[in-house]
Amino acid sequence: MNPNPVIATVSRGGIVESQHRGAFVVSDAKGHVVASSGDIEAPVFPRSAIKAFQCVPLIESGAAHRFGLNDEEIALCCSSHNGEPDHVRVAASILKKAGNAEAQYECGAHWPHERSDVVAIATSGAEPRAIHNNCSGKHAGMLALARHLGAESEGYVTLTHPVQKAVAKTMAALCDVDLAHAPVGIDGCSVPTWAYPLRNMALGFARLADPGHTAGQWIIRAARAHPFMIAGSNRFDTAIMTKLPRLFIKVGAEGVYCGCIAHAGLGFALKCEDGSYRAAEAAISQTLLKLDVWTADERAILAAHAHSTLSNWRGLEVGEITATV
Amino acid sequence: MNPNPVIATVSRGGIVESQHRGAFVVSDAKGHVVASSGDIEAPVFPRSAIKAFQCVPLIESGAAHRFGLNDEEIALCCSSHNGEPDHVRVAASILKKAGNAEAQYECGAHWPHERSDVVAIATSGAEPRAIHNNCSGKHAGMLALARHLGAESEGYVTLTHPVQKAVAKTMAALCDVDLAHAPVGIDGCSVPTWAYPLRNMALGFARLADPGHTAGQWIIRAARAHPFMIAGSNRFDTAIMTKLPRLFIKVGAEGVYCGCIAHAGLGFALKCEDGSYRAAEAAISQTLLKLDVWTADERAILAAHAHSTLSNWRGLEVGEITATV
Repeated sequence: MNPNPVIATVSRGGIVESQHRGAFVVSDAKGHVVASSGDIEAPVFPRSAIKAFQCVPLIESGAAHRFGLNDEEIALCCSSHNGEPDHVRVAASILKKAGNAEAQYECGAHWPHERSDVVAIATSGAEPRAIHNNCSGKHAGMLALARHLGAESEGYVTLTHPVQKAVAKTMAALCDVDLAHAPVGIDGCSVPTWAYPLRNMALGFARLADPGHTAGQWIIRAARAHPFMIAGSNRFDTAIMTKLPRLFIKVGAEGVYCGCIAHAGLGFALKCEDGSYRAAEAAISQTLLKLDVWTADERAILAAHAHSTLSNWRGLEVGEITATV
Repeated sequence: MNPNPVIATVSRGGIVESQHRGAFVVSDAKGHVVASSGDIEAPVFPRSAIKAFQCVPLIESGAAHRFGLNDEEIALCCSSHNGEPDHVRVAASILKKAGNAEAQYECGAHWPHERSDVVAIATSGAEPRAIHNNCSGKHAGMLALARHLGAESEGYVTLTHPVQKAVAKTMAALCDVDLAHAPVGIDGCSVPTWAYPLRNMALGFARLADPGHTAGQWIIRAARAHPFMIAGSNRFDTAIMTKLPRLFIKVGAEGVYCGCIAHAGLGFALKCEDGSYRAAEAAISQTLLKLDVWTADERAILAAHAHSTLSNWRGLEVGEITATV
């Protein structure tokens, strides 16, 4: 990986205390790069930032229609959620509509994001289940697709399963990328994750935003209607999409953000080299802010996320995070 | 801040997914640099990595002797602890011995590190108190010093208070640095934190390790006897000092590690440019491993911390963190 420019700084006492490097690209649906910085051709694992791509075969196969999935459920299929009660409710509904059960999940279990949900589970004497996993919506969608394809659900997370083959085929076509020869890793939730250039991710999201892309239109509409389902309480994705409904944005592990601006026909992708979210959030906000596609109100929202104040345990202002893209 | 070399990589699927840059230095007590990489002259906020320095005036003033502090309590004065029940017990003891009370704390409150302690507090209907703050041992020591100096405890965290003046004077002398003209910020626990070169931090720790430095000998002995007090359950500092008692090491916020190897007369300091702990832990382990001052058993312990496997929520091995120093 080549050195990339500094995309955000963290300052204290008037000097830079820490700094973060990264790369980003904004593309239209024809592959024209509208803005970029750093190495946008190096392979990057998008991780959960491309859950929207993973959801496309669920829709295009007819599975989503067959099982009567609604907007809330489609949004959760594209989410990295907090495992809050509403997320669990919607994941359970997707499972039920497709005739699946929690026991079929192969994503593993982890504790919810919010302290109050952790305490609620712990005090009941229970342990977190796979349905609390931040990927349980995506996995419920994958199980629905397996059911629709008439495939055994066991092993639906493996590279050779029809579900993952469908995901790879869809993503390769959308992003103009040869995934057969791309590095492939195992994601936190056990599904394959392919590494490919940021430029191709941005292209794929621009194409997803095209009015002619039926599945993309549903996904973007669903996220706009239910931004809470994409992440949840105290999360950047939900906060910014709630305030800025013309933006579709999704975090991926290790400092990735991908998304699209449907009204402008643009897709974007950013990776913070060191995996930092604070830097990725500030830098993608500033990257989007610099595009000439927003109203003054929308610019103010993005500007607020491109720069934030750090407070300490007593509430004193002690520093700031500033995008430098 | 100049670009620094890559000190650790995080890989997945056979490629580097994320990478971390930083600088480090190992010095003897005469200021001879034994090993270094990156910019060791740039000002760095050591944050909690120099709590040992902040503890020196407590000892050298006579306050620690006067109030009868024991090794466990001195270790906690140098700690960033988890707020576990044993840490809270020892902090309370320091407060009591010096005639102080929790209400005098100016560090702010935050939840303990471990889930079980969070759940215990939450289920009792309580909120975390200042004594749960990871710095409550240091602050109990500072309150004891204020008492000993006959100073009002109110405002003991401010730059102009006799406690912080004593800290600055001690640290400036130990590290050969002019703190009067150094950038100064407010730390997470509200005390001043001065930025100065890693080289000077390493020098100060080498001097602290000198057999003639009485306060240093007490601090190092206390940490060796009570590594749990320095951090706690599931923490790097405690884990490695428990296995490797000839090492004194302390984390600081934003990816800093400082410490000393008393038997070799060496001090060290490392800063990960982006504030990452996973990188700082791997890189400092590898840095120490490369010094010709360890037994084969000790080298094996350091090697194990310089490289670690990443597992996902199902326990599958999905990647690794590797020091590259």
